[in-house]
Amino acid sequence: MICKCGHKAIYFRRYSGQHLCEKCFKRSIFKKFKDTIRINKLMERGDTIACGVSGGKDSLVLLHLLKELSSKFDFDLFALTIDEGISGYRDLSIPFIRKACKDLDLELHIHSFKGEYGYSLDEVTKMEDRLGACSYCGVFRRNLLNKWSRELGANKLALGHNLDDESQVVLMNMLRGDVSRFGRTGTFYKDIHPKFIPRIKPLREIPEKEIVLYAVVSGIDFDFEECPYAPEAFRDDVRNFLNGMEEKRPGTKHALLKTYDKLFPILNERFTPDSICTCEECGEPSISSLCKKCEMISDIKNKIG
Amino acid sequence: MICKCGHKAIYFRRYSGQHLCEKCFKRSIFKKFKDTIRINKLMERGDTIACGVSGGKDSLVLLHLLKELSSKFDFDLFALTIDEGISGYRDLSIPFIRKACKDLDLELHIHSFKGEYGYSLDEVTKMEDRLGACSYCGVFRRNLLNKWSRELGANKLALGHNLDDESQVVLMNMLRGDVSRFGRTGTFYKDIHPKFIPRIKPLREIPEKEIVLYAVVSGIDFDFEECPYAPEAFRDDVRNFLNGMEEKRPGTKHALLKTYDKLFPILNERFTPDSICTCEECGEPSISSLCKKCEMISDIKNKIG
Repeated sequence: MICKCGHKAIYFRRYSGQHLCEKCFKRSIFKKFKDTIRINKLMERGDTIACGVSGGKDSLVLLHLLKELSSKFDFDLFALTIDEGISGYRDLSIPFIRKACKDLDLELHIHSFKGEYGYSLDEVTKMEDRLGACSYCGVFRRNLLNKWSRELGANKLALGHNLDDESQVVLMNMLRGDVSRFGRTGTFYKDIHPKFIPRIKPLREIPEKEIVLYAVVSGIDFDFEECPYAPEAFRDDVRNFLNGMEEKRPGTKHALLKTYDKLFPILNERFTPDSICTCEECGEPSISSLCKKCEMISDIKNKIG
Repeated sequence: MICKCGHKAIYFRRYSGQHLCEKCFKRSIFKKFKDTIRINKLMERGDTIACGVSGGKDSLVLLHLLKELSSKFDFDLFALTIDEGISGYRDLSIPFIRKACKDLDLELHIHSFKGEYGYSLDEVTKMEDRLGACSYCGVFRRNLLNKWSRELGANKLALGHNLDDESQVVLMNMLRGDVSRFGRTGTFYKDIHPKFIPRIKPLREIPEKEIVLYAVVSGIDFDFEECPYAPEAFRDDVRNFLNGMEEKRPGTKHALLKTYDKLFPILNERFTPDSICTCEECGEPSISSLCKKCEMISDIKNKIG
């Protein structure tokens, strides 16, 4: 098939009916990324952006796109990686991050669970009578991303969540009956605490498979591995369903996100906790006097010393 | 397994972990039906309720439960059936309806597409260049249910939608990206037009399989047949997904409905059209000067005379 520019198409975008050549495909991704930022007012001139980078396709594509944008739009950018301490996984993805930051001439900051809390995720998961690995990892990672974005001078934290991630979360929250979480998802975080760095998700309207294709045609080397702790049955079921629906009715994932985006401003007004306070232990934003991270660390200390 | 009352259980309700004997099961269904009415203020003393009856399990169980309630709570009740004119289907279900109304000593009113509009659904579907059968059927059925409830003196129209139906619609609306429909679903219809009869759905928290079981153990004869026009791929996909999720995580359908019920009052405020007016042709409530039913009838007249 032929792209409208006359070159050979490498991709058929079913939800828009377009056949795209490599150049037009790459241009369309950059445009979607830029439009998401512009329409949702995610960035301003003079921002300092910390880009959370895991070494996977999403965060490395995001880092490349932000770097490209920084040549046209005045902001500072650096990469921030959290090393959870997952042997055979994170240690293998860090070289991909180092290479990307070297190629793009960007500063890279790496902070680890072990260095910060004294325990790697692998150590935590050896503990008896514990929560799922992802529970600790999510709380700890968000804590360090927020803290180090701020400490390193960023006023925004950019994350690589794509359309698939975002639409899965919307549906998962619906199926859990948890409306209050709606006010905490999305790209449009309000300034809720002086120590909270707003998170932006410039890839949230780009399907996962287009991120992969973009990485491949742009020669971005990324880590293909999945986290060994990752298999999460609930999300897998939701992902399979949404992929099947998208296959049959292209545009379903975008429609689901659109639903959410229409609901969000309304829900955000109603459900944002007014009770965001400061953790008495560590001084980070919290919804109670002891933040979830400090609560978990205290439990781990009690159990494994 | 044994019911908590000491009798042999006939049913295990996974989402609550209860083993129930026949008597306790039937009592629990009646209680859920009554609680749904009470908590959502669906009925008042002195109401006249038209119960829409198709001859399937849901509407016949609803008719039985309403009849049982009417011995304890002062309201009038009659059955209202719309005969779409689907040969080999509706004609076969009407005897089930007649039998139930005779057993329960209730008045039955039957009104048909053919008698009202001059065309049966079978005739409409023979037309070329047409919409799907369910599009005509939905519009015509809602039109006649509303009109005849009102003409026959009812102030509420009770419908047999169960938990499966309701949770499917919530998810379908989400996946369609159609937030405005949210304000039009649910059991809590506002008085939006003097000729609009509010619809109530007292079975919306009861899973489909419990409705079937209730019908069987109560000796309610119902029509097992599915409408020959029914297979709707989108709903089938959503149904299969929700059934799978419910199997793995009992309570998922209830949780989805709970999400919707939390969102509904907020959405209803924002999205209820202020533009409900009166059809200039037939005088029924409409969202434009010509209602959807009159628009369709006019198109059919043009095409098949």
